[in-house]
Amino acid sequence: MKKKLNVAMIGYQFMGRAHSNAWRQVGRFYDLPFEPVMKVLVGRNQARLTAAAGTLGWQETATSWQDVVARPDIDLIDICTPGDFHAPIAIAAAEARKTVLCEKPLANTLVEAEQMVAAVRKAGVVNMICHNYRRCPAVTLARQLIDEGKLGTLHHYRGVYLQDWPANPDFPLVWRFQKAKSGSGALGDLLSHTLDIARYLVGEPAEVSGSLKTFVTERPVPGTTTKAPVDVDDAAMTMVRFASGAVGTIEASRFAVGRKNHNRFEINGSKGSLVWDLERMNELEVYIEEGPNSGFRRIMVTDRSHPFCSAWWPAGHIIGYEHSFTHTLLDLLKGVAEGKSPQPDFEDGLKNQRALDAIETSAQTGQWVKLAPPA
Amino acid sequence: MKKKLNVAMIGYQFMGRAHSNAWRQVGRFYDLPFEPVMKVLVGRNQARLTAAAGTLGWQETATSWQDVVARPDIDLIDICTPGDFHAPIAIAAAEARKTVLCEKPLANTLVEAEQMVAAVRKAGVVNMICHNYRRCPAVTLARQLIDEGKLGTLHHYRGVYLQDWPANPDFPLVWRFQKAKSGSGALGDLLSHTLDIARYLVGEPAEVSGSLKTFVTERPVPGTTTKAPVDVDDAAMTMVRFASGAVGTIEASRFAVGRKNHNRFEINGSKGSLVWDLERMNELEVYIEEGPNSGFRRIMVTDRSHPFCSAWWPAGHIIGYEHSFTHTLLDLLKGVAEGKSPQPDFEDGLKNQRALDAIETSAQTGQWVKLAPPA
Amino acid sequence: MKKKLNVAMIGYQFMGRAHSNAWRQVGRFYDLPFEPVMKVLVGRNQARLTAAAGTLGWQETATSWQDVVARPDIDLIDICTPGDFHAPIAIAAAEARKTVLCEKPLANTLVEAEQMVAAVRKAGVVNMICHNYRRCPAVTLARQLIDEGKLGTLHHYRGVYLQDWPANPDFPLVWRFQKAKSGSGALGDLLSHTLDIARYLVGEPAEVSGSLKTFVTERPVPGTTTKAPVDVDDAAMTMVRFASGAVGTIEASRFAVGRKNHNRFEINGSKGSLVWDLERMNELEVYIEEGPNSGFRRIMVTDRSHPFCSAWWPAGHIIGYEHSFTHTLLDLLKGVAEGKSPQPDFEDGLKNQRALDAIETSAQTGQWVKLAPPA
Amino acid sequence: MKKKLNVAMIGYQFMGRAHSNAWRQVGRFYDLPFEPVMKVLVGRNQARLTAAAGTLGWQETATSWQDVVARPDIDLIDICTPGDFHAPIAIAAAEARKTVLCEKPLANTLVEAEQMVAAVRKAGVVNMICHNYRRCPAVTLARQLIDEGKLGTLHHYRGVYLQDWPANPDFPLVWRFQKAKSGSGALGDLLSHTLDIARYLVGEPAEVSGSLKTFVTERPVPGTTTKAPVDVDDAAMTMVRFASGAVGTIEASRFAVGRKNHNRFEINGSKGSLVWDLERMNELEVYIEEGPNSGFRRIMVTDRSHPFCSAWWPAGHIIGYEHSFTHTLLDLLKGVAEGKSPQPDFEDGLKNQRALDAIETSAQTGQWVKLAPPA
Repeated sequence: MKKKLNVAMIGYQFMGRAHSNAWRQVGRFYDLPFEPVMKVLVGRNQARLTAAAGTLGWQETATSWQDVVARPDIDLIDICTPGDFHAPIAIAAAEARKTVLCEKPLANTLVEAEQMVAAVRKAGVVNMICHNYRRCPAVTLARQLIDEGKLGTLHHYRGVYLQDWPANPDFPLVWRFQKAKSGSGALGDLLSHTLDIARYLVGEPAEVSGSLKTFVTERPVPGTTTKAPVDVDDAAMTMVRFASGAVGTIEASRFAVGRKNHNRFEINGSKGSLVWDLERMNELEVYIEEGPNSGFRRIMVTDRSHPFCSAWWPAGHIIGYEHSFTHTLLDLLKGVAEGKSPQPDFEDGLKNQRALDAIETSAQTGQWVKLAPPA
Repeated sequence: MKKKLNVAMIGYQFMGRAHSNAWRQVGRFYDLPFEPVMKVLVGRNQARLTAAAGTLGWQETATSWQDVVARPDIDLIDICTPGDFHAPIAIAAAEARKTVLCEKPLANTLVEAEQMVAAVRKAGVVNMICHNYRRCPAVTLARQLIDEGKLGTLHHYRGVYLQDWPANPDFPLVWRFQKAKSGSGALGDLLSHTLDIARYLVGEPAEVSGSLKTFVTERPVPGTTTKAPVDVDDAAMTMVRFASGAVGTIEASRFAVGRKNHNRFEINGSKGSLVWDLERMNELEVYIEEGPNSGFRRIMVTDRSHPFCSAWWPAGHIIGYEHSFTHTLLDLLKGVAEGKSPQPDFEDGLKNQRALDAIETSAQTGQWVKLAPPA
Repeated sequence: MKKKLNVAMIGYQFMGRAHSNAWRQVGRFYDLPFEPVMKVLVGRNQARLTAAAGTLGWQETATSWQDVVARPDIDLIDICTPGDFHAPIAIAAAEARKTVLCEKPLANTLVEAEQMVAAVRKAGVVNMICHNYRRCPAVTLARQLIDEGKLGTLHHYRGVYLQDWPANPDFPLVWRFQKAKSGSGALGDLLSHTLDIARYLVGEPAEVSGSLKTFVTERPVPGTTTKAPVDVDDAAMTMVRFASGAVGTIEASRFAVGRKNHNRFEINGSKGSLVWDLERMNELEVYIEEGPNSGFRRIMVTDRSHPFCSAWWPAGHIIGYEHSFTHTLLDLLKGVAEGKSPQPDFEDGLKNQRALDAIETSAQTGQWVKLAPPA
Repeated sequence: MKKKLNVAMIGYQFMGRAHSNAWRQVGRFYDLPFEPVMKVLVGRNQARLTAAAGTLGWQETATSWQDVVARPDIDLIDICTPGDFHAPIAIAAAEARKTVLCEKPLANTLVEAEQMVAAVRKAGVVNMICHNYRRCPAVTLARQLIDEGKLGTLHHYRGVYLQDWPANPDFPLVWRFQKAKSGSGALGDLLSHTLDIARYLVGEPAEVSGSLKTFVTERPVPGTTTKAPVDVDDAAMTMVRFASGAVGTIEASRFAVGRKNHNRFEINGSKGSLVWDLERMNELEVYIEEGPNSGFRRIMVTDRSHPFCSAWWPAGHIIGYEHSFTHTLLDLLKGVAEGKSPQPDFEDGLKNQRALDAIETSAQTGQWVKLAPPA
């Protein structure tokens, strides 16, 4: 009989739904060191909370995250709130010696992020930030190919994350357009993902020159026709000089009409190249230089031998977006068993945050901003 | 409190895993008329059965399907066995007044399939054959576009279902290569799917001229080096004249090296065309004739307004193979609530079987074979 | 100083324009054994003929092909007329000891085609049928890869040639819809091309089962509103059993709305697969089985080392449809220099014709039709 | 009888071959106001020059461009030399009242470019810079769609021009790696193209922040094993703020292994988006927002009604790289007839040069550089 691991999750919107699904599924497909129990769902509105717990499959509900963090039977805190609540919850959870999983970005400010890292370090708890795209099988395979030297020395990273949901100026001023709640716009929401992939695959940035743009500067307050100012970016772009000598461009936009979830990267190395697109996440395009009959080849990353794929279906039977969360939980639970934080941990998340912060600073000053060299 | 609906599933291999997942997930994402309970898993090897029930999440196990079919607390029988067991189980289930879901093909022989239809008719039970690909959102959307007349009069269906898993001659003689167990090879396994889609989207075939081919005529008996004859087809192809006047080619192969799960169709009508490929199942390519600036456009079938998509993730966040089963169960449960068999029911499955049978007959005689006109 | 080779071309419509361009260009890009001289353009309407000769760059015009064939200064007869004139001109040209290039299909009837082969054999003249797509660099490369054994034993050929120009029922009854002039419809016009590629890449068909379809059975006589019957096929399809043991489906249609010039094939062998599409003719997709990280790779067939490419532009700077004719003339002129007919010669064209004829017979009888074994 | 227009071309390497082809072809496919005569080819090495003139089809040769510019029978000077010769030849040609066509970039330095503009202005001669990609039919169509307002307000330009020919560090130090001859590396060679397209489709840049990178800092002197320094960039990237309020990223590299000629742009506007790739230059991907069933549609830009296409082949019969030059000459000759410089003229080329210069300055200073507002 496996030891149980009681999970409390705070937040039940989009990310809460995705995490719930992953908690439900992970043990059905992988042989886990623990049996995760979906113990408590935490939120503020009791009626909605009860409904969500029923739909998503949580045993209990609670309206005070502080109380839940203090419960001795809870082993793991999964933070799915907007960014402004990440720091207080994570710090309290660390102090209470819980394992902590936190949605990205780590925090809305660098100071908070640093406090979070200090807290988990001090407490010595296993911690992880949920950059789920690292665990799309094709992205993990990309890392393996790079580690094996198949691409040679890396020269270029070219990442975009493009969406279009609020391109209509009448789309309301939800929390994602309010700096106080979300920290930033496309920068923290989207660019943070492709930056994380860049760091995962190419390495740490040494210097950035960024720019932010808000196309629609005021939007209707939800449920009204009154407009209020948007104080976050609609689009963000940056040039990057990596510590390794590679260079890159990274861009995110919520105004790329027609692009629904176009998280794409291209990496060029001295021996080959890689291309990936989240909308076709089961495929990795790989070019290896072998003379004139070389070409970009489309690998269906669905074979049993591919990362995370042994648990799923036969080759060619594709998986979806939600599976990246299941894979993340698998590695988190392995980490708990080994007492070791899996990557990306809070410290890694802090590095991402520092780079995002540098991009924002650069956008304000018009200067290149240097980042501290990797330790 | 929702009424419970107790499910017994027979078989726990590939299809058993896919159905179990769908039973587990359907109520988490859709508002159902019943609460399905994963009550009993049925198999012959108790040790493996126990393990499977644990992994897949079934409450009980049983080694006699006859006993389970007789249990008054069981509401629905889900048949995931090889084809040779479909008829006896389905007929017994119908006689016991259970709802019956049966994996495709309906049966290994036309006679059995007819007996199954007679049994469910006589018993008046809700019944369904699991042609899950009809409920990939893009395929359902294809049907909507056709029904709305967007394509005009249909002229062509061009379907292939290509895989390559046993292209190596050393791949062993598993049950799928034995006519007694599987009924046929690529014909029943793969061509049956693209034929079903043809019937769903274009209509009933009136006449077929088919051909079967076995490239590797003997294979090693599993676990040995002894070879035994393969008595099913490795590849099947047919020309089709539809009752509507459209014409088509349909082909399936297990020897299309590089094609993992390439279930693709193209439909050409007088006003436009459609293309779909299971490996990129979230996309539908649609051409509508509107002058020189027309073009095949790639619709991401992931918007909340697309079929079955309201339950899942935001646009562009793709779903996978397994979701087609969840959608199938959703419609089955709605059917149970309404007391009406959803499409495709056993009768529809029998029509598919008759067309498969005609292809096989044609392959033997070298003649076109006429099918009975649609009633 | 190179020896001159005087060319007379009969016909100046679509094919005449394409051949003229190739005659003009071939010597500018390739080092030829002869200097081709665009000597005489032959047609029936003097006014249009004079205009065409000016535009296309022919030195002289003539209205009697018989006179031109008899001219001692003419070395090569290039036949670009509709099919009903191929035989008389080619036979006369052969008797006059001219090199003969003939557009496809070789003739409108098998009898004529046989007479043409007999004539060039008897006269011993260099002869060629213009199946230009063999000399798209990617198709020639496909042949090289097959000859090198990269694909192993071939199992499947899957060819379609789809267009849509006359899908509108009001498109007039031009010569391509009249059997007396064109011999057949999509069969001779389009299917003949993909059949030729099948024969070039996979080998000779042993047996075919074909079907023809006319969707629009009468069309307006050009310049009038009166309708007259269409007596050719709008679409043609066939199953093929190749002498080698491979099997195939081949299909052509003028009613595939949205498909402008979609001449596509897929070949599956025991070790790999090939895909090509004329609309992206500079690319060849190649799959070679090398384990789970294999994939279809897109080769840009534009490197100097690729077939015919040394003459053109740097890699990635694509060429177009017309270049396939230039490459054809290059090989024809080499053949003249060596006194040897390049492939496909008339004999090869006759084999294609026999297969087309068998498809037509099969479409009438509903039976498989056997072809004579390759000599 | 058409008036003749005598052309002298200086240079016969890659661009000389492409221009020669276009001069030869343009009158065969388009009805021109003049008959262009390929009169004199100018170069320095008489032996190679003679050979080139023979192959390319020029009537005469000359080794002094000064003499040729002075010849009264010459009407048009076509400059295909490396950049260091553009200014002296163009200025002399203008002073001699010749029509001038100049390869891009206009000059190696801004000062030279300004002198060239002054010279053609003063002389009042028709002048054009050869940014041939503007006249790929799909790019011209993109401009039409934008001008018609189909895309709404433009928000993003995302351009890359990626090649890989010198990615091998042993590739020799040819003129393209020497600043004195080429002015710059990927910046002037490749980025200049995608910048020109940006200016053509989106408008003038107001501000740029650029960065240059040299990956291989020394290369073998041709024909030796001695290495000498590379003093140009291997890769260039820039962020752009357009005068219109749109923002963009533009990047060029000679080190994108696997990318042969990947000149690609994506434009996002408030109502739709466009994507184009030179390697598939006959296709334009267009997204127009029309609700959930919208999608990127692939237009085959080969219909008679598409820009420049009436002269070529039926729809779907693609054209190649070289045709963009033919289209350029067509518009130049029309300009000569009308006495009006077609776009892009030298003044336009100067604007491109100023932006390139600003990128280079920005790369040196690490600052954003403002460009003068459009007049």
